[in-house]
Amino acid sequence: MDRSVSIFDSTLRDGAQAEGISFSVEDKLKIVRALDNLGVAYIEAGNPGSNPKDLEFFSIVKQTHLNCAKLTAFGSTRRKGILPHDDKNLQSLVTADTPVVAIVGKCWDFHVSDILQASLSENLEMIRDTIKFLKQTGKEVIFDAEHFFDGYQENPEYAVDCLNAAAESGADSLVLCDTNGGAFPTNIFDITKKIVEAFGTPIGIHCHNDGGMAAANSFMAVEAGASQVQGTFTGFGERCGNVSLATIIPNLQIKKGFLCINPEKLVDLTKTARLVDEVANISPNDTAPYVGRSAFTHKAGMHIDAVMKAPRSFEHIQPELIGSSRKLLTSEVAGRQAILRKIQKINPSITKDAPETKEIINRVKELEHKGYQFEAAECGLELIIRKHLGKYRPLFELENFKIVGEQPCSTGYSTTAMIKINVDGKTEITAAEGDGPVNALDKALRKALEVFYPQIAAMRLTDYKVRVMDGKSATASRVRVLIESTDGNESWTTVGVSTDIIKASWLALVDSVEYKLIRDIENRFGAYLR
Amino acid sequence: MDRSVSIFDSTLRDGAQAEGISFSVEDKLKIVRALDNLGVAYIEAGNPGSNPKDLEFFSIVKQTHLNCAKLTAFGSTRRKGILPHDDKNLQSLVTADTPVVAIVGKCWDFHVSDILQASLSENLEMIRDTIKFLKQTGKEVIFDAEHFFDGYQENPEYAVDCLNAAAESGADSLVLCDTNGGAFPTNIFDITKKIVEAFGTPIGIHCHNDGGMAAANSFMAVEAGASQVQGTFTGFGERCGNVSLATIIPNLQIKKGFLCINPEKLVDLTKTARLVDEVANISPNDTAPYVGRSAFTHKAGMHIDAVMKAPRSFEHIQPELIGSSRKLLTSEVAGRQAILRKIQKINPSITKDAPETKEIINRVKELEHKGYQFEAAECGLELIIRKHLGKYRPLFELENFKIVGEQPCSTGYSTTAMIKINVDGKTEITAAEGDGPVNALDKALRKALEVFYPQIAAMRLTDYKVRVMDGKSATASRVRVLIESTDGNESWTTVGVSTDIIKASWLALVDSVEYKLIRDIENRFGAYLR
Repeated sequence: MDRSVSIFDSTLRDGAQAEGISFSVEDKLKIVRALDNLGVAYIEAGNPGSNPKDLEFFSIVKQTHLNCAKLTAFGSTRRKGILPHDDKNLQSLVTADTPVVAIVGKCWDFHVSDILQASLSENLEMIRDTIKFLKQTGKEVIFDAEHFFDGYQENPEYAVDCLNAAAESGADSLVLCDTNGGAFPTNIFDITKKIVEAFGTPIGIHCHNDGGMAAANSFMAVEAGASQVQGTFTGFGERCGNVSLATIIPNLQIKKGFLCINPEKLVDLTKTARLVDEVANISPNDTAPYVGRSAFTHKAGMHIDAVMKAPRSFEHIQPELIGSSRKLLTSEVAGRQAILRKIQKINPSITKDAPETKEIINRVKELEHKGYQFEAAECGLELIIRKHLGKYRPLFELENFKIVGEQPCSTGYSTTAMIKINVDGKTEITAAEGDGPVNALDKALRKALEVFYPQIAAMRLTDYKVRVMDGKSATASRVRVLIESTDGNESWTTVGVSTDIIKASWLALVDSVEYKLIRDIENRFGAYLR
Repeated sequence: MDRSVSIFDSTLRDGAQAEGISFSVEDKLKIVRALDNLGVAYIEAGNPGSNPKDLEFFSIVKQTHLNCAKLTAFGSTRRKGILPHDDKNLQSLVTADTPVVAIVGKCWDFHVSDILQASLSENLEMIRDTIKFLKQTGKEVIFDAEHFFDGYQENPEYAVDCLNAAAESGADSLVLCDTNGGAFPTNIFDITKKIVEAFGTPIGIHCHNDGGMAAANSFMAVEAGASQVQGTFTGFGERCGNVSLATIIPNLQIKKGFLCINPEKLVDLTKTARLVDEVANISPNDTAPYVGRSAFTHKAGMHIDAVMKAPRSFEHIQPELIGSSRKLLTSEVAGRQAILRKIQKINPSITKDAPETKEIINRVKELEHKGYQFEAAECGLELIIRKHLGKYRPLFELENFKIVGEQPCSTGYSTTAMIKINVDGKTEITAAEGDGPVNALDKALRKALEVFYPQIAAMRLTDYKVRVMDGKSATASRVRVLIESTDGNESWTTVGVSTDIIKASWLALVDSVEYKLIRDIENRFGAYLR
């Protein structure tokens, strides 16, 4: 390792400024623990001056033991015309009682005059006063130089004066911010290099992604000598977001030999990214570099063949290094080869040119055309192949179901589902109440099936996703339902498509249950209708 | 303008290799027309050798007149050990009858030996033969140098030999590919610069985003002298995707003065990106640079105040230049100020410190905590404010509704909804059939309301979105329903949250109808309960 780079995570502060993001105290604690486990250097966890909830959070988080991360509170330079100890926001920063504070100050002359409406010298005084005041409380003080690159390009002397004001007043590091996110890597490199050479204080970089270059801009700043990178873990933040630390860390540590986090924890990178997105309650970006679900997914037949010969032919790193794994898809592009492999798993004697192979491929294409997608639901594909090859007999038959919902509702549940099924000539009729029609139907189906197949009791649904395929006709649009199930040992996903959400859910429920039952038979008897 | 850069769009070829993407012929025609309208130079529309559907597409698209884009068919160098005119894939390329072909050839010695399992000289012969053969048919030939950067770093002589083989055989341009997407901007710049200086043939760049640096890598190649940029329009492609042309075009044209597309069509950039995602049937990335829905969205109160004073304080370009617009959000972070503006629209006498303001803010926070989100559904917020200020009386009351669904179903519809409502003491009971419970309930409600409010007939739903807020308890998870409605003049979005999808849909439907009725009253009488 040549050099260390401090990772400064602002998921809980700058990230909370993203559209659609809102954290509870419990959410924040979960994220703090996950980031500390990974070994990031700083966790910026809130702005106590602007948000009283953040102040409450800092009083709670104090009781949590952290292994290596330093908690950081964020605030602005003091207000115009008042003394630091009369400034409520600065008082809140002291009250937050964190070992580190990050102070943002203006460095772009246009912002000082037009937005802050202060004189250039007054802004310098605000920077000096604020940092001196906070240093007197014994804290580590990070100075975030807002709009530094925009400011430098319009008035370099003033931008540097602002850094000088901070450094002379005792700031422990100076962080150059591309606040509007529109800077280019060449400018970031040149300007950062000059600043690193001119100052003895450690320099950091804080990039936004409005030009799509936040990861490269952060890298170029490190190349120019920056030793701290600020970002949010999966990249959410104002507008197009902050740089994603889940991209920065492997770029620097795996590929360039910098020490960013505990090397033993690199394998937790993907898991941590999923956790952050889950806690933030946003859909993870499947195509995110490194940690996205598609990052090591291969679809083109030629790519699949090549990675099977040598992974590095189409993979820039080994996915296992960051706790991810390779995925090979079934699709039109992958074509025959991938589907054939699945067919031969069920009947090894069927060849590439057999008529069954062609029929199955045509059936899959037809279903894909209707909106089915087997990339995420491969066990649905297995059932289709079994049906075509006669390696399937229905494990139950639906006689009928009825769903009744009402509002206002007399019981705690709004919906009742009645179901009648038939297994080998014996019928079972039952009913269940639920929170909405899909929940009621799921409960009723499993209750009826348990009479014949007790092992169904071990099974539960873990995820239920609805995707409206075309928004044109609104409530009568075609919807795709994906259901993820588990029996404690294995997880599997099934899919159903219909214009009716109940029908689509039913199709996915039935596939899920049948997959479970077939797997159990195979596990007990070695094969199911092979 | 200093210099032109040719834009080469591969949405329909490399983009189709992304997980979850599949295009019909009609889809492809729509995208071809949109890209041609914008003025991209090349549209790579398929791989006729590997996909017979693509060959069919080329025969159809020939009948479409294009203003400036050149249609391009994609294929590989000839197979080992056979002559070009015996190679079916090359024959398909000729049959496709496009003015341009893009030929991918191997340039990384490891790929030649381990994947292709050919000798290094044999691969050079394959490149030469293929390009000569296609040049004899009179086509423009683009050589895509696969894995060029990885190859150059391990065996620079051989990588350059491959380019030489293509150039000497008549290739019209040489495109350097970072196929695995893991290259760094500094290497891309240095290597591209050497190649530009060594070759008379125009050089292009083709980047993937596995390291999160595709946009910067493409830019650095242009800085080094590349004159063609290949990508997919909104960035989808294998694994983490290709570079997004919707990012590249404004970066180069607006900020750096390169001519990429027809300057008059820059305002169509956002619209085109939305169309491509819609046709591909993928959820647009809201945080995409430039064209994402959040790209010019401001949430923090301080940012909102600043952009209202001077937009460039937190915007890297004017959103109007690319056909986008600014959005200011209501949220916890924006706080009092934004909600106060909405309150004062309804009752201008209410001040920032009035008790009503505090109550409303608390109510909004409480609902946001439950999963409501008013950022996308501001008219829901208006209704809440009206209720608090006494500027609301219910326009109808629900007595009850019942929903009955059954499977198998005797009629064409699976579900019937019965509803009884009350308007000023008069009741109306009616029923409607629908495709699923929400569709039936929506129809029944509007049918009952039309008796009292005929203007409801002009209203229809245009979008219906379901978001499962936490997947933990699967079918009993909390869901958020967003409904978008229009009356032909105006569009509005409402939101409902519940563990029951019917309840959540009902809440959003009621808000949507009430918003429409209140708007009509205001338009006719100037005010509604002001």
